[in-house]
Amino acid sequence: MAMASRGFYLACLLLGALGFLCILGTTYWAQHWRGGFAWDGGKHMFNWHPVLMVSGMVVLYGAASLVYRLPQAWLGPRLPWKALHAALHLGAFVLAVVGLVAVFRYHSHAGITHLYSLHSWLGLTTTVLFSCQPPEAAACLLRSCHPVSVDGVCHLRHQREAVLQPNATKPYHSLPSEAVFANSTGLLVVAFGVLVLYILLASPWKRPELGVLADRQPLLCDRE
Amino acid sequence: MAMASRGFYLACLLLGALGFLCILGTTYWAQHWRGGFAWDGGKHMFNWHPVLMVSGMVVLYGAASLVYRLPQAWLGPRLPWKALHAALHLGAFVLAVVGLVAVFRYHSHAGITHLYSLHSWLGLTTTVLFSCQPPEAAACLLRSCHPVSVDGVCHLRHQREAVLQPNATKPYHSLPSEAVFANSTGLLVVAFGVLVLYILLASPWKRPELGVLADRQPLLCDRE
Repeated sequence: MAMASRGFYLACLLLGALGFLCILGTTYWAQHWRGGFAWDGGKHMFNWHPVLMVSGMVVLYGAASLVYRLPQAWLGPRLPWKALHAALHLGAFVLAVVGLVAVFRYHSHAGITHLYSLHSWLGLTTTVLFSCQPPEAAACLLRSCHPVSVDGVCHLRHQREAVLQPNATKPYHSLPSEAVFANSTGLLVVAFGVLVLYILLASPWKRPELGVLADRQPLLCDRE
Repeated sequence: MAMASRGFYLACLLLGALGFLCILGTTYWAQHWRGGFAWDGGKHMFNWHPVLMVSGMVVLYGAASLVYRLPQAWLGPRLPWKALHAALHLGAFVLAVVGLVAVFRYHSHAGITHLYSLHSWLGLTTTVLFSCQPPEAAACLLRSCHPVSVDGVCHLRHQREAVLQPNATKPYHSLPSEAVFANSTGLLVVAFGVLVLYILLASPWKRPELGVLADRQPLLCDRE
């Protein structure tokens, strides 16, 4: 049990470092290659979109999904953990909404059709599904899918951004430094999602089913 | 138990239909909008890539991962089920290799840099990881990740193809019929991956842990 906890905390530490690097990488990419941030409807307003979606739907949502894996959350009063879980979710939701406002206002301002890409179709579906409170069976599936599905959506955007490159001096397929940086940040986001899924599924880190706990709940999908 | 089996077979039926539509959609897209198939190093050779990767890494691999969920595989001799599982994996591997040859030869022929995109980085990593026999812990994670990770890689390509559209009459963001069709096929591939993950994780469809079986194995990751 102590060994298992140590592994869990090490995995969480690695996850925190990865999450930090994902946000840092996306921010640096927007600042260094895409001209930085603004809230004026122009292309610099768009740059908030990747940063806020990675911060909210990937990193904060990932953190929220792991609250009930903390051994401290298995015993004693549940309310503080439910409050922490809800606060992280709320934070993720607020960041996602602001991130969506950024892209919709940018599209309106630039006269670009809304919701034309597979990225937008999947992204909006994912955001709506994770924002509402689905029935338990669906929630169980969604929770398991979330890390990788959000990853997939992120990459669609990464890829499209990299291919389009409106002010690039070299095409994407000559692998300029921006493409290497964007691809590497994409890999970090994948690694984050895979690690969240691993921590969620690794059996020694799940709430024990039998023994000290009064209530027994399905292991894979603790009622959160 | 009978109820659970009925649900399982219905889910498998739905999965089969989705898999068929994924292959059909990708083939129709390549035939109707991209000029069909050839094995000559040209752009029609490339068209084999999406079709073979969806057939192998998505559909056949998905089917292989579900063999041990069949109630028939829980009792009696294990060898026939192991053979079926191995045959499906081998089929998936062969299709994936031919699909990779298609894209590498197309790139060589057209003078395009190999492995410049995030799609290629993730795609090759995924193919290598799923082709080798990783240690049990990693295999457990990989099996769970596979449906959605392969999905993510597919979409990167879908998106990039749609954005680039070398011989398109309308740009992707005006949502021409090809974009609607490609996005919809992308959604089908997502739905297939989510359904495979759901069947893998749904607890009533797992091999029973206690009772009639002589050997007890971890439920989430039966030794396959």
